[in-house]
Amino acid sequence: MHRPRTDSPALKVIFLGGVGEIGKNMTALEFGNDIIVIDCGSCFPNVDMPGVDLVIPDTSYLLANRDRVRGIVLTHGHEDHIGALPYVLKDLNVPVYGTKITLALVDAKLREQKTENVKLNIVKPGSTVQFGCFKVEFVNVSHSIAGSCALAVTTPVGTVFHTGDFKVDFTPIDGNVIDLQRIAEIGRRGVLLLLCESTNIERKGSSMSEATVGASFDGIFADNPERRIIIATFASNIHRVQQIIDLAVKYKRKVAFCGRSMVNIAAAAAKIGELRYSDDVVVDIDKIKNIDDKNLVIISTGSQGEPMSALTRMASDEMSKVRLGYNDTVIISASPIPGNERMVYNVINNLYRHGCKVIYESLAEVHVSGHAYQEELKLMHALLKPKFFMPVHGEHRHQKKHAELAVRTGMPPMNIIVPDIGNQVLVTRRSMKPGDNVSAGAVLVDGLGVGDVGSTVLRDRKHLAEEGLFVIVIGIDREEGRVTGVDVISRGFVYADSAEDLLEEAKQLVLRVSDKTDLKELEDPTVYKNVIRREMKSFLYKETRRSPMILPIVTES
Amino acid sequence: MHRPRTDSPALKVIFLGGVGEIGKNMTALEFGNDIIVIDCGSCFPNVDMPGVDLVIPDTSYLLANRDRVRGIVLTHGHEDHIGALPYVLKDLNVPVYGTKITLALVDAKLREQKTENVKLNIVKPGSTVQFGCFKVEFVNVSHSIAGSCALAVTTPVGTVFHTGDFKVDFTPIDGNVIDLQRIAEIGRRGVLLLLCESTNIERKGSSMSEATVGASFDGIFADNPERRIIIATFASNIHRVQQIIDLAVKYKRKVAFCGRSMVNIAAAAAKIGELRYSDDVVVDIDKIKNIDDKNLVIISTGSQGEPMSALTRMASDEMSKVRLGYNDTVIISASPIPGNERMVYNVINNLYRHGCKVIYESLAEVHVSGHAYQEELKLMHALLKPKFFMPVHGEHRHQKKHAELAVRTGMPPMNIIVPDIGNQVLVTRRSMKPGDNVSAGAVLVDGLGVGDVGSTVLRDRKHLAEEGLFVIVIGIDREEGRVTGVDVISRGFVYADSAEDLLEEAKQLVLRVSDKTDLKELEDPTVYKNVIRREMKSFLYKETRRSPMILPIVTES
Repeated sequence: MHRPRTDSPALKVIFLGGVGEIGKNMTALEFGNDIIVIDCGSCFPNVDMPGVDLVIPDTSYLLANRDRVRGIVLTHGHEDHIGALPYVLKDLNVPVYGTKITLALVDAKLREQKTENVKLNIVKPGSTVQFGCFKVEFVNVSHSIAGSCALAVTTPVGTVFHTGDFKVDFTPIDGNVIDLQRIAEIGRRGVLLLLCESTNIERKGSSMSEATVGASFDGIFADNPERRIIIATFASNIHRVQQIIDLAVKYKRKVAFCGRSMVNIAAAAAKIGELRYSDDVVVDIDKIKNIDDKNLVIISTGSQGEPMSALTRMASDEMSKVRLGYNDTVIISASPIPGNERMVYNVINNLYRHGCKVIYESLAEVHVSGHAYQEELKLMHALLKPKFFMPVHGEHRHQKKHAELAVRTGMPPMNIIVPDIGNQVLVTRRSMKPGDNVSAGAVLVDGLGVGDVGSTVLRDRKHLAEEGLFVIVIGIDREEGRVTGVDVISRGFVYADSAEDLLEEAKQLVLRVSDKTDLKELEDPTVYKNVIRREMKSFLYKETRRSPMILPIVTES
Repeated sequence: MHRPRTDSPALKVIFLGGVGEIGKNMTALEFGNDIIVIDCGSCFPNVDMPGVDLVIPDTSYLLANRDRVRGIVLTHGHEDHIGALPYVLKDLNVPVYGTKITLALVDAKLREQKTENVKLNIVKPGSTVQFGCFKVEFVNVSHSIAGSCALAVTTPVGTVFHTGDFKVDFTPIDGNVIDLQRIAEIGRRGVLLLLCESTNIERKGSSMSEATVGASFDGIFADNPERRIIIATFASNIHRVQQIIDLAVKYKRKVAFCGRSMVNIAAAAAKIGELRYSDDVVVDIDKIKNIDDKNLVIISTGSQGEPMSALTRMASDEMSKVRLGYNDTVIISASPIPGNERMVYNVINNLYRHGCKVIYESLAEVHVSGHAYQEELKLMHALLKPKFFMPVHGEHRHQKKHAELAVRTGMPPMNIIVPDIGNQVLVTRRSMKPGDNVSAGAVLVDGLGVGDVGSTVLRDRKHLAEEGLFVIVIGIDREEGRVTGVDVISRGFVYADSAEDLLEEAKQLVLRVSDKTDLKELEDPTVYKNVIRREMKSFLYKETRRSPMILPIVTES
């Protein structure tokens, strides 16, 4: 007799962030009673989220299953992988695992947000940690931040390999080449599922080594012996900062760190030995006035043109500590993240207006990407030869292209799923199929509020931003059934001094509507206010082609 | 005896737009009693101008000298060269000169904005127009729109050559190759001043011919015989639209235009013979349901991901006429203008989510730039060999780089001025020097208002957008010296239902402040309101770390 086949227990792969977008990475693996979370990132708000400080993942699925969450493992210390920890850990206090430098950055972040009692566990690349039925091995990879790891997770159904963010750099600054031998060995033993990042899927060939940036910088130092040099880069790119410090020593210059995160991260990295320099090389930014231009390098934040960053403030002449001029050579050692182009170019234009020499990516090789190009991605696929594949860490277009690349390298299309946020995928030794979606998305952080700014608030903000505000205060005497006064206040709508006639006509309109209303019987002013709002809206639109937010306020004498 | 040397009369070159930015081009030439204006463009608002529809140049200098303005000459029909005409001509009704297609586009624009009684004068490339002491010759150039011209202006001090926007295309679609022979002849006779565009100064080598795009399209048509093809491009790129129509005929497909400006511009161009097709090739977008996918090409607007454009609406499934699916190949034949990247990528991601095949610039040669690369700019300098040079049409960084290129081609640095907006440069046969600045800048168009949205309004809008609004209505009985009621209304600040406690505490705060105020003596409530505003601000910031706009309103019973 043929017994009906029952589904064998499946591994659940749950995507809470980092797919369908670049930012706020978070993936959960679940099997039976155990859940582990890979990364816990944040991202910056879109332009349609004015006033929002930060966006973090919706973790309601994890909170609903909090008893089974064994820990959070971190691939590396970039914001889009660790930035949500201070908020998420407040409600879900599970142990956190990462390399030394990753946790040093996490620690600084937790202190800043006053998140306490967190169990941080340092893991060395090459070692493993057991979480219930999961065994997680940290595998050293190259990336634009030190201490980056891929994760090889042994699960009851097979090995899941999560690349984290990586590139193949054969000449990394710290000498720790990506552990290709170990990756090959893991692949030889059999990988059930590969989760591989997709950021640079559109770039052909291979990325350049971080060392090439040092060579470019060396040339610039040699060519600018008499000038002050200012280099803006990501504070977390410790290897690049190290290269700049080493060149400063070579060319007998002092180094000044500029910008809060640059100062903080350099200190944190130096403390644990990831950044190495002798104390007499670094000077405080407050003391650079006494140093000749030719003897100074300033390493600054602001490579993305962020409004409050050091370089942006220098460029708009708002930073008294550093005044720019004709003897400055400014290097922007980064490429604009999509969406930041306008801000970066504005900074560059302002630097030129100060007379600075400006060197940036479209003109020179002063930046390399930290993410694998097509040939490096192919290498990863070839070393691991997974049975199943899901492209992650990319916008949808990147993931689709990555799936196409996998097919070209020989993977059957039916063994690939392109996940989107909130998807749950069920994986067994033999099969992979979509499960029910889970709650996932964006939680907005605004000031002290986490999640209290939602779509209604954003819609109102957008309306206020685009059309402005028109407040109508109507005083009525209900006993006498008459209006005692009308006042109009507008903000962000028209310049009031030039619109006296308009405001006067608006008041007359209120009086006309009120004449038609029996104010003595006005128990509930809602209908009256709605009529005022509707009439005013059509009047203002006719006169100005604008639709400000109209707030009628009725007060009784 | 040596007589003191008097300055000979100078030509004034006045920059009212298009320098220090890419957009709203407008340059004036003035000598004695004559002023001519070159181009009259608009640009889109920055992200810090919410609600603004369009930005046009400040023309107060021209209005103050209106009796001397002889006319506006247009280099070509792109928005950043003609877009401000409907607004500017309302106050400054001078004759307008341009090529046939340029004026056809202007005419459509004037009708839309109901600007009437404009004297439009068609000029053929190669011919000249006299304006007082100025003689303007229109010289045919290549660009991404038909009918583009450079201008050779004979002035009392010498020839001024303004390139307009140009590229060197040896195989243009209409066969009208840029008139290099005439440009060389003008150069040989002597050019006093060159104003040359700078858009692509950062790109090495030469731009590709428009014809290469047609070759790429041909390959895509051949590779996708069974699929529907949708191509998004700029409506004004008539040559590209022509190439698509020609390929449709070759591959036996019908063409449907989609998007308001695509339909309008195609009609305008067809009417004057700039776009050629037989009537049976084009079908109305409302009638495509009856046509098989393999027999159809849709030419659409939306290549910049503009929110209300046809392609964006298709991608977000808001356009009932065109529903996307697995059998669609979508080509985005444009590159994102800096600042639009995010919008374009969002559209591409959504296209992939529909299952479409998507072809865009970073993946294939489906677009070429309309602006000269470095080698083409050098050719222009070499043919004209001007005495003086001012780089125009670019951000400040582009202009600076262009000045450096000119120096490398042998021009003395002292013969170059990099102009910024509002600059006036005085040019004689022998000298070039900065004059006094004139009033110039951005005039914002919002609905029917031109110029009534200024910095105060924008600052309020930004504040409202980022922090929201907090209205406090306080009713007082002045005779009794007491508060009769407090109401609080917030918008865009916090979600009210979840903030009841906060709002209640805010009311209590108002009552506490009021207790300390002698309301009987409240002749002028300004001080009282200021205290309420200050206390409320600090209370709300402490509780939420947000600073909404606070509007206290005091009404008397």
